[in-house]
Amino acid sequence: MIDGLKRLDAPLFGRVAVIGPGLIGSSILRAARETHLAETLVTSDANPDVRRRALELDLADEVPETSAEAAIGADVVIICVPVGAIATVVADIAGSLKPGAIVSDVGSVKAGVVDKVLPLLPAGVHFVPAHPVAGTEYSGPDAGFPTLFLNRWSIITPPDGADDEAVARIASLWETIGANVEFMTATHHDLVLAITSHVPHLIAYNIVGTAADLEQVTQSEVIKFSAGGFRDFTRIAASDPTMWRDVFLNNKEAVLEMLGRFNEDLAALARAIRWEDGDKLFELFTRTRAIRRNIIELGQETSAPDFGRTGAAPINPEAAPVQETASV
Amino acid sequence: MIDGLKRLDAPLFGRVAVIGPGLIGSSILRAARETHLAETLVTSDANPDVRRRALELDLADEVPETSAEAAIGADVVIICVPVGAIATVVADIAGSLKPGAIVSDVGSVKAGVVDKVLPLLPAGVHFVPAHPVAGTEYSGPDAGFPTLFLNRWSIITPPDGADDEAVARIASLWETIGANVEFMTATHHDLVLAITSHVPHLIAYNIVGTAADLEQVTQSEVIKFSAGGFRDFTRIAASDPTMWRDVFLNNKEAVLEMLGRFNEDLAALARAIRWEDGDKLFELFTRTRAIRRNIIELGQETSAPDFGRTGAAPINPEAAPVQETASV
Repeated sequence: MIDGLKRLDAPLFGRVAVIGPGLIGSSILRAARETHLAETLVTSDANPDVRRRALELDLADEVPETSAEAAIGADVVIICVPVGAIATVVADIAGSLKPGAIVSDVGSVKAGVVDKVLPLLPAGVHFVPAHPVAGTEYSGPDAGFPTLFLNRWSIITPPDGADDEAVARIASLWETIGANVEFMTATHHDLVLAITSHVPHLIAYNIVGTAADLEQVTQSEVIKFSAGGFRDFTRIAASDPTMWRDVFLNNKEAVLEMLGRFNEDLAALARAIRWEDGDKLFELFTRTRAIRRNIIELGQETSAPDFGRTGAAPINPEAAPVQETASV
Repeated sequence: MIDGLKRLDAPLFGRVAVIGPGLIGSSILRAARETHLAETLVTSDANPDVRRRALELDLADEVPETSAEAAIGADVVIICVPVGAIATVVADIAGSLKPGAIVSDVGSVKAGVVDKVLPLLPAGVHFVPAHPVAGTEYSGPDAGFPTLFLNRWSIITPPDGADDEAVARIASLWETIGANVEFMTATHHDLVLAITSHVPHLIAYNIVGTAADLEQVTQSEVIKFSAGGFRDFTRIAASDPTMWRDVFLNNKEAVLEMLGRFNEDLAALARAIRWEDGDKLFELFTRTRAIRRNIIELGQETSAPDFGRTGAAPINPEAAPVQETASV
């Protein structure tokens, strides 16, 4: 048994199908196996290489060729494909779904997706969208692992009039595979994720692009001296391009709104630099430290210096009374 | 003996003084001890708490009360204080330096510092500025560790007419404590670091500030859902406020120039989102992946997913033939 995941005495579901066993989908399957979430696990993918790999990795009990076959008889179908492809998958499986089946997804954008998906589903089938806020910069069936969702949050955004029982079952699914569950509207979700995930990705992609295009500084210099901060951005800017293209196209309004605020604040900061307003800089740089402390306290981050990358001993705040003091 | 550091048969220097035993200074002292860099290690700090802690941690053989005392008889004095305080320390020690002594520093900005420091030094004393591109988000004497510089780059920016022998000795110092050495002009250094370190820090500080000030999204939501990308920025935005204030005030021109380019590119990206130009987004997001691969290949970064934060198994690219393929 893997640390932090508990095996159920009896499975929560008969048949669970995951469409798209990539980073997120294969992690759900791996965690479902560990926890005995379902009697039978099914997966499929439009890409035959991915299906072959799913078989080799033994990610599911059955790996049919199409998502429509995978959906037959399933109690829950979780669609784990880029946001722009969700509606296509729903259209493909709609005819195979049994009455009472629950369809869910893991997309990083919610409002637009719900609008597209709801009209495609037959009556008597429930749609309960979810978004696990977890991931790494890798993609594909080999990138998943069973503890990806442990102590992370899965946000469920039930549409108006959603069936309470179906919502509760999707909440149990996420709790079983290690996640905490939070409920909010699709619109609020898209705003929260715009600032905590989408805009950070956008500016990371952007600065890596800016650095690559400079004529005064060579690419080899950028790479060599990346330990000064740049390399942390390259991790985020190595995320799956298809997934992220779809996120920005489908959460346009919220991303542009949050980006506008980011730009206003950045302009004020540039002005403080130009006019040498050291107090304004110092005030911001002090305030931002506190937020990281909260993230670490809430278990959403490691306190290891440099993410533990350096081999440094963990910081013991008790032993470091002058840690926050500038040295001169 | 610590992995990766070699102990010298005979010390390179008689007496080495480090002014300011914070993250960088105390790491130099720890690595110097391990490698037998000097017969005698000396340190001092303007803050009595830091001096007391340096004694408790046994960072040096002598911990005098003033930097002037620490400099007496030193072959090398390394000034490890925020950029804005370097000239003050140089003025304090100028009268104590013996003929032939080498003064160095570790500041993240070079050109402006050289201009201020050179006129303060007596004839017969050498100034060889250096900047180790290494660090973590922690500060103070407890935050340092002996392998901080291992396989990192230290950039030496010799002023016009610098003594070759003195430059070579500072290069040997950094190589002894594990760093690779690169030479460039102070002006070029400031441009390279503006894009690889200063602007990344600025936008990280900025987005953390923007997120903290939103009225539609609560601070607790920002913290809870930070695993979507935001938390990586908070690490950088937790760096020492005094150090970073001084960096921006002293590298104004290069930072504003690079920030201008970043803003132009970001405006183009925002436009691509507004006009739903998915191809432009996909092209950038694919290009930025390659840069990260190069950084990992050159040993400046770990390939562990999520910085190894998740407990995931390391990715084996041979075993993951479909890793780069979107799942649908």
